[in-house]
Amino acid sequence: MSFSLGELAVRFGCELRGSPDRRVEHVATLAHAGPTDISFLANPKYGRDLKATGAGAVVLDAAVLDACPVDALITATPYAIYARIAQLLHPMARFAPGIHPTALVESSADVDPTAHIGAFAVVGSGSKVAARASVGTHCVLGSEVILGEDVQLAPRVTILDRVQIGARSIIHPGAVIGADGFGFAQDPEGWIKVPQIGAVVIGTDVEIGANTTIDRGAIEHTQIGDGVKLDNLIQIAHNVRIGAHTIMAACVGVSGSTQIGERCMFGGGIGIGGHLTICNDVSITGFSMVSHSISKPGIYSGGIPIEPARDWRRIVAWLKLNSRKARDSKESKDD
Amino acid sequence: MSFSLGELAVRFGCELRGSPDRRVEHVATLAHAGPTDISFLANPKYGRDLKATGAGAVVLDAAVLDACPVDALITATPYAIYARIAQLLHPMARFAPGIHPTALVESSADVDPTAHIGAFAVVGSGSKVAARASVGTHCVLGSEVILGEDVQLAPRVTILDRVQIGARSIIHPGAVIGADGFGFAQDPEGWIKVPQIGAVVIGTDVEIGANTTIDRGAIEHTQIGDGVKLDNLIQIAHNVRIGAHTIMAACVGVSGSTQIGERCMFGGGIGIGGHLTICNDVSITGFSMVSHSISKPGIYSGGIPIEPARDWRRIVAWLKLNSRKARDSKESKDD
Amino acid sequence: MSFSLGELAVRFGCELRGSPDRRVEHVATLAHAGPTDISFLANPKYGRDLKATGAGAVVLDAAVLDACPVDALITATPYAIYARIAQLLHPMARFAPGIHPTALVESSADVDPTAHIGAFAVVGSGSKVAARASVGTHCVLGSEVILGEDVQLAPRVTILDRVQIGARSIIHPGAVIGADGFGFAQDPEGWIKVPQIGAVVIGTDVEIGANTTIDRGAIEHTQIGDGVKLDNLIQIAHNVRIGAHTIMAACVGVSGSTQIGERCMFGGGIGIGGHLTICNDVSITGFSMVSHSISKPGIYSGGIPIEPARDWRRIVAWLKLNSRKARDSKESKDD
Repeated sequence: MSFSLGELAVRFGCELRGSPDRRVEHVATLAHAGPTDISFLANPKYGRDLKATGAGAVVLDAAVLDACPVDALITATPYAIYARIAQLLHPMARFAPGIHPTALVESSADVDPTAHIGAFAVVGSGSKVAARASVGTHCVLGSEVILGEDVQLAPRVTILDRVQIGARSIIHPGAVIGADGFGFAQDPEGWIKVPQIGAVVIGTDVEIGANTTIDRGAIEHTQIGDGVKLDNLIQIAHNVRIGAHTIMAACVGVSGSTQIGERCMFGGGIGIGGHLTICNDVSITGFSMVSHSISKPGIYSGGIPIEPARDWRRIVAWLKLNSRKARDSKESKDD
Repeated sequence: MSFSLGELAVRFGCELRGSPDRRVEHVATLAHAGPTDISFLANPKYGRDLKATGAGAVVLDAAVLDACPVDALITATPYAIYARIAQLLHPMARFAPGIHPTALVESSADVDPTAHIGAFAVVGSGSKVAARASVGTHCVLGSEVILGEDVQLAPRVTILDRVQIGARSIIHPGAVIGADGFGFAQDPEGWIKVPQIGAVVIGTDVEIGANTTIDRGAIEHTQIGDGVKLDNLIQIAHNVRIGAHTIMAACVGVSGSTQIGERCMFGGGIGIGGHLTICNDVSITGFSMVSHSISKPGIYSGGIPIEPARDWRRIVAWLKLNSRKARDSKESKDD
Repeated sequence: MSFSLGELAVRFGCELRGSPDRRVEHVATLAHAGPTDISFLANPKYGRDLKATGAGAVVLDAAVLDACPVDALITATPYAIYARIAQLLHPMARFAPGIHPTALVESSADVDPTAHIGAFAVVGSGSKVAARASVGTHCVLGSEVILGEDVQLAPRVTILDRVQIGARSIIHPGAVIGADGFGFAQDPEGWIKVPQIGAVVIGTDVEIGANTTIDRGAIEHTQIGDGVKLDNLIQIAHNVRIGAHTIMAACVGVSGSTQIGERCMFGGGIGIGGHLTICNDVSITGFSMVSHSISKPGIYSGGIPIEPARDWRRIVAWLKLNSRKARDSKESKDD
């Protein structure tokens, strides 16, 4: 598949510098692109690569146009336009409609004839798979699951009873949606399991990474808003609610009953306590510990970056010593 | 299924205020309960919801009874009683005895006739599945695995060779029990794999969350005590021993050969070093780093909560600067 | 299977003290070994166990020989020699060549006749499985996957399209190799998915732990060098490159486009930011936050170990108060 720069400029509303008839077939990095590749510059850090690029064309901002030695598609949002062009040149594989002969679909399940059910997949009783949805190889759907139109489950996704997934959402391998929340009541005999009878309701255009887990609600539903993007190995505990278009990098853990606003951006490895409220438009840098609610939009950080081990031991010792001294001095004054 | 308040009061030893004949069918939150629902108040934070509740009845402590506008089951342990009532009203699904025609059970395996083996499950040679145990869809059991009575494996659990799981334990999707521990010896040629020949021995009444991993011992067994509860995405390394009734929230990592006592409570995201000993009755707040042994019961904390990013940069700079100054001043005195 | 101490001494270049005809059958810990077991002492911490051992023989360094009450294989690298002996006494199970009748192998796939394909495994179109490689029960291979000679996939591994895995590599259950990287462009309409068209290229002699995830590159390939060892629940993001013989304990997260050198050693739970460069021979202690590049080999640390909760609250309060005071004082001087 190839497109001319003229077609791309018109379709995506870019200004074109160069030949409208030049055709591009693939995307590539500035450093490795050839004459039938299209590349992009979104991060000024890669300006040197731009000057030396052999790409057929580059998607870029007008501010760096002068440094571009080849044809260019000019836009104020080069990364977003690049993403759309890449989707055009490298469309996602579509699976053929139909149910693989090895799949097990309960007779009470309702699978649209345009949907795909892969090899060894299991679809439980009363589940619905809407038009053009794809259930990958080895996926397991419990009972009364609802998959919206064009949902794509990669191979080996587990969706448990009564989970709902909105249209166009994509879920990667190993994700587990709707396992029991972690609820136990303390008792002299030990911990008593608290039945987890809520479900998980996931909006439209959500993406969920590999081996991420989202637990069902204890009584009501765990809720993931439209357009939310979750990376790999994330844990979303029971009763959590995440607002639309919030995005989280890998290895984040969100504890039970916490509510997160819309358009938040969380770096990787963040730990978020339970029963907190985080407002809209909060960004948190990676590996931070969030133990209180946040009511003001903005950027937040935590953690202390590494030092050479020897310096680090000194910092820890100094911190513990001086804070202790301050207490002792205060206590002696209080006497 | 419904129960009268009178039946519930007798069965669970509660005092009843209100009508013994009122019947309840479901559990619900105070805020959303209707007249055939039963709710509970365990956290005084939700006291306002109690005053406005439309529940048929509420399980609560005598101290808050006056604020309750509806019938009440009065107990000193409302959350534990709620858990038991919820188990009664919402019993876990029981699978029919028998082996699904698509399952593969080695002829030398011993599967009790009352056990359930789900679709596409694989049960290896010499494995034993005791009475009423349930092996979910797509589970894989290696050879010589032992599942106790009433064990429940959710879909897609992997249990490797020689792992033993005690009665009534529950394991959620994606968990991997008995993969090789991470053992390598350094050598001029690179890392040499150290065979991991121990197994994993799991007690009774254990619950293990989705995508959690528990590695087999290097030589002897990794051991998980009775009544232990592990949330999702937890890593338990080889040779670890965890005492009875200890509970860990999600994303905790326990390094190799560490011993953890009984009745410990760990928040989410904690990292625990290797070859440590943690005594009984230790609680650790979430996202803490544990790099030394703990010999005294109590509550421990670590980590520094987030600040607005600008304040945070100041704190880090100040900490590093002042600890360095202290060292330089000490060093110049030492000269 | 048993070996005489004489055979072992010759094969592994050890000095022998004791009877060359004594035969050993199993490995065991010093504390629990019997007369047909061989044990080892690599960590002087276990010196007391050496004195009391009932082992048939012990692999140890000459420095501790005097304390050994039984026969000994003497070497400067006892743990590496132990590892090799354990491999000999406890060889990994080899699966019989052939394709299980329930497996689905696309006709265009090229499976060597000496390879093993387990029950319910799926091998996609154009994939190649080399000599003696083993694809475990329930594994899923996408299209155009390449598995080198003697690769071993445990049950339930997912390898997506175009991933390449070098000879002798071992991958544990639940690992997901080649899921989409986490790439989205911000747009007024929400996040736009950036197609992830690179693959993952894994070297020879790599080991990858249970439920670890390695994402495919955005445009070029994510690369894992020869001899790399990754523990469980690790996240390797798109475009990351890891140099040969680097080793990472569980729960590490490496963000996108970061390059890590050779022979690095990372403790568990470390978080590493994106677009960083870490040079060869860097060791980082567990649970550290790495937010800048490292250009000098050495040992690095971060994080602040736990304290009793009350002391910890004091430390945090003191740190925040004093750094604020320092700022206020500086600001008033600046006025």
